[in-house]
Amino acid sequence: MIGVLGGMGPLATADFFSKVLAETPAKGDADHVPLLIQSDPRIAPRPPAILGNGRSPLPELLAGRDRLIRAGATALAMPCNTAHFWYSELLQDCTVPFLSIVDASIQELAPLATAGSAVGIVATRATLAAQIFDAALIQAGYSVMLPDEAQMGTQVLPGIELVKAGEVARGGRLIEAAVRALLDQGAGAVLLACTETPMALDAIQSSLRSRCVDSTAALARACVAWWRSNQS
Amino acid sequence: MIGVLGGMGPLATADFFSKVLAETPAKGDADHVPLLIQSDPRIAPRPPAILGNGRSPLPELLAGRDRLIRAGATALAMPCNTAHFWYSELLQDCTVPFLSIVDASIQELAPLATAGSAVGIVATRATLAAQIFDAALIQAGYSVMLPDEAQMGTQVLPGIELVKAGEVARGGRLIEAAVRALLDQGAGAVLLACTETPMALDAIQSSLRSRCVDSTAALARACVAWWRSNQS
Repeated sequence: MIGVLGGMGPLATADFFSKVLAETPAKGDADHVPLLIQSDPRIAPRPPAILGNGRSPLPELLAGRDRLIRAGATALAMPCNTAHFWYSELLQDCTVPFLSIVDASIQELAPLATAGSAVGIVATRATLAAQIFDAALIQAGYSVMLPDEAQMGTQVLPGIELVKAGEVARGGRLIEAAVRALLDQGAGAVLLACTETPMALDAIQSSLRSRCVDSTAALARACVAWWRSNQS
Repeated sequence: MIGVLGGMGPLATADFFSKVLAETPAKGDADHVPLLIQSDPRIAPRPPAILGNGRSPLPELLAGRDRLIRAGATALAMPCNTAHFWYSELLQDCTVPFLSIVDASIQELAPLATAGSAVGIVATRATLAAQIFDAALIQAGYSVMLPDEAQMGTQVLPGIELVKAGEVARGGRLIEAAVRALLDQGAGAVLLACTETPMALDAIQSSLRSRCVDSTAALARACVAWWRSNQS
């Protein structure tokens, strides 16, 4: 049974749950991955903690991790890019494998972007400030390309807000413009490290979707693969 | 934290999770209901057990119930109509409130169907055979109206199968025909006691939707109401 440390936010956790189901080659119910999903929205907000003006969610994340393990989780996953800021602390004394959204995403970037090329990242300010993916991307031989301040202010952030407000197609056109700008500037692929952005591109059937990796879907596929190899 | 005894099937559990989120009057993440969702598709199939030719899922349901309580659940819900066949056994020695999909549904039928009228039920053969809702509906002053054999064979069951196969609009037209037949025969309202049927009617924007209660959504609303009254 895979434990899911979620609720950051709840809609992203529901999106992850749906993606695990969609990514499972299931002939019937019994082929699906057993999950134990903690969706706890009371965990302290991650952005202020990362930016240095809010209490750390780490104690609550550790408590959730241990609750899931005690309840029988044989592996863990956390469908929140930003919370991976505390990933190394969560690995300490962790008695089961903890699948990383960063590793899962980089594995899916490999077929899209050759080593040495740049990978663009589309995400919220907090996720970008937390530099969740940077070290691992560099380690994998990529360089990191972020949207500039103008792209953040006119495309990425308003695009995410429009999706959250239900204006998914309008948001999709802004996110697509941000992705196109990164590709035009030489990115080999773009990492969509924000739950709202893949659905925004899907809503407008963007042809650029195939140049992008959805970090939540990558983690979902890693969970399905782990379960199929381990089955416990 | 509300514990969710799910995985019967996993897609129904994901549907329930989404409905809890949709039914929550949330200004932000922190307003959402904390959930601990067990989605375990390894629980023995309910239809053969009810029909007398398969092992009982009760031991696994009890184990799941106790796992959720030990992990901190302060109330429980089970988003599966058919599994409520074992509801009274699950209540025994249960140390926290266990919200019933039957009670939640009947509460929502009240504004639609006056006491003394018939309530139609659209569900799979196993749910109908298990008579999950019958005694409680009669207790509440209703009579029970089921689709006849021809309606089951030409509308309800093929409609559900079409939705499962992704042909949601085609399925919707069959389910709508089954609902209309029940209303034409005098039902005051119709209980949709199968996950696929509300989405089928929604897909064709059926005007009959307002005459129906979605048991999964009713349970989701009961969970949100419980949480808002108890907050623990």
